[in-house]
Amino acid sequence: MDNLKNSLTEVHNRIKPFIHKTPVLSSSLINAMIGADLVFKCENFQKMGAFKMRGAANAILSLSEEDRQKGVVTHSSGNFAQAVSLAAKSLGVKAYIVMPENAPQVKKDAVRTYEGEIIECKSTPQARASTAEKIKNEKGASFLHPSNQDEVIYGNATAAIELLEECPELDVILTPVGGGGLIAGTALAAKAFSSKCKVIGGEPMNVDDAYRSLISGKIETNERFDTVADGLRTHLGDRNFPIIKDHVERIIRVEEDEIIHAMRIIWERMKIIIEPSCAVPFAAVMKEKETFKNKKIGIILSGGNVDVKKLPF
Amino acid sequence: MDNLKNSLTEVHNRIKPFIHKTPVLSSSLINAMIGADLVFKCENFQKMGAFKMRGAANAILSLSEEDRQKGVVTHSSGNFAQAVSLAAKSLGVKAYIVMPENAPQVKKDAVRTYEGEIIECKSTPQARASTAEKIKNEKGASFLHPSNQDEVIYGNATAAIELLEECPELDVILTPVGGGGLIAGTALAAKAFSSKCKVIGGEPMNVDDAYRSLISGKIETNERFDTVADGLRTHLGDRNFPIIKDHVERIIRVEEDEIIHAMRIIWERMKIIIEPSCAVPFAAVMKEKETFKNKKIGIILSGGNVDVKKLPF
Repeated sequence: MDNLKNSLTEVHNRIKPFIHKTPVLSSSLINAMIGADLVFKCENFQKMGAFKMRGAANAILSLSEEDRQKGVVTHSSGNFAQAVSLAAKSLGVKAYIVMPENAPQVKKDAVRTYEGEIIECKSTPQARASTAEKIKNEKGASFLHPSNQDEVIYGNATAAIELLEECPELDVILTPVGGGGLIAGTALAAKAFSSKCKVIGGEPMNVDDAYRSLISGKIETNERFDTVADGLRTHLGDRNFPIIKDHVERIIRVEEDEIIHAMRIIWERMKIIIEPSCAVPFAAVMKEKETFKNKKIGIILSGGNVDVKKLPF
Repeated sequence: MDNLKNSLTEVHNRIKPFIHKTPVLSSSLINAMIGADLVFKCENFQKMGAFKMRGAANAILSLSEEDRQKGVVTHSSGNFAQAVSLAAKSLGVKAYIVMPENAPQVKKDAVRTYEGEIIECKSTPQARASTAEKIKNEKGASFLHPSNQDEVIYGNATAAIELLEECPELDVILTPVGGGGLIAGTALAAKAFSSKCKVIGGEPMNVDDAYRSLISGKIETNERFDTVADGLRTHLGDRNFPIIKDHVERIIRVEEDEIIHAMRIIWERMKIIIEPSCAVPFAAVMKEKETFKNKKIGIILSGGNVDVKKLPF
């Protein structure tokens, strides 16, 4: 336990110069609505707009000087692509971002803002993996996984560390569950920095692979991908699943309309912009109000990168 | 000067239990874009979502116990109606809100949330004034003006007081200009709490009554009202105009597309929700970048009450 705490503290100190310490907000209207004390850790205000900056920064900082000179490569069309690009830029490292050729222009532009080099490929998981592999071999670049890599998981843990430093009495922290990197990191942080804080995941019903994985005991995948929470379509991996199995209390599944409703409440009541994936844990709390009554609840608002021209409400 | 400072401090202390001390945010991307240091005083996070809570609270707190028992009345279909309702509710005072019968349902609902009693009238300025007058006479309720009343102006001043406490080195504070209550209060605060901070207004070109008033030396009105900044269609009043004339440096006018662009930048870069009126001062800074280069700039983000289903972008 002390080892874990020391390792996480070391990671936190290492990435501090490259991240924002994001604010923790609350809303008396939302507290009254739920009948509990809620605090929101605003990673939507993080650099590049999502918690992913933490894991990306730690992963690059963990590389040797020699490896840094060869650059890093990832395949992602979402926040992790931006996070790797910005973290790499901050450290003078070259970032190769493999993206499907049909990725939205806005996502390509975001990566280019942070000077990531985009390599386009066909829009299949196989093409993405093989293109990234090719760059790894040709350039000697280090591959960074968005969620299934220890350094990324440890980096992600630092959001919950900051939250627990500010609110040590939390009974529970909720995060969304996509690839599993955020909830695994959060579970490690809760274990190391609190004696009582549980960790619960929120997952869209339509892509409930993590929920099913906890039941079957093995990594399940999704057969459908139709959710507004577009950051949560991925499944768990072999590095984060054991942590989740051991340290996550449970996963609550929510319907699409519940996600959209929760997102809108946070927009309207808190006046902050969060992406749909980010509304899932709050949707879970709204769904199971009785479970959470009178509890001290932390919610990690994972990100705020949303196309304001394409809102679900 | 010391008298003014003492009076404003007294007002601030009086309303503190009824308002939020709102956060001051900044964005390195926006600073780089403008080439200056900008800080944003987030009154969009204020109770009921706008700075109007400050003036409303002070106006009600300034009433005698006897007057409070008779209630308060205002005519507004916007943020001031909500502010009076919530401030009155917090103080156990009855609030009568005169609203045009065609006011949007969402605005009526907001007032009812805070237990204001809505009295509908025809949608003309005359009907609104005469209906409010009637309630004043019948109930003995005290009339509260959204912008042209000393207690409201002094209450509004407290946003800039907090901003200057946190950022004493500001060269300039910008606010939107509608009825004039916010910019007048801000000008008083800058005069009393800073030796150098100027105050500049931002106003939509289409409703530039305040700009014209400063030129002509008398209160001008608008002949057109077509602006996305729907909180800024009103004109100045005899209580705030003298303050504005004496203490506001100048007013910068901006076009509709500049307002919408500025609003979108704040949404996308800062991940916070602001209403169109609230984007006007930042639009002014973007328009006159050269004027503001290397300056320390405070912007009062006046409010965040926007219908997320009806965005201008």
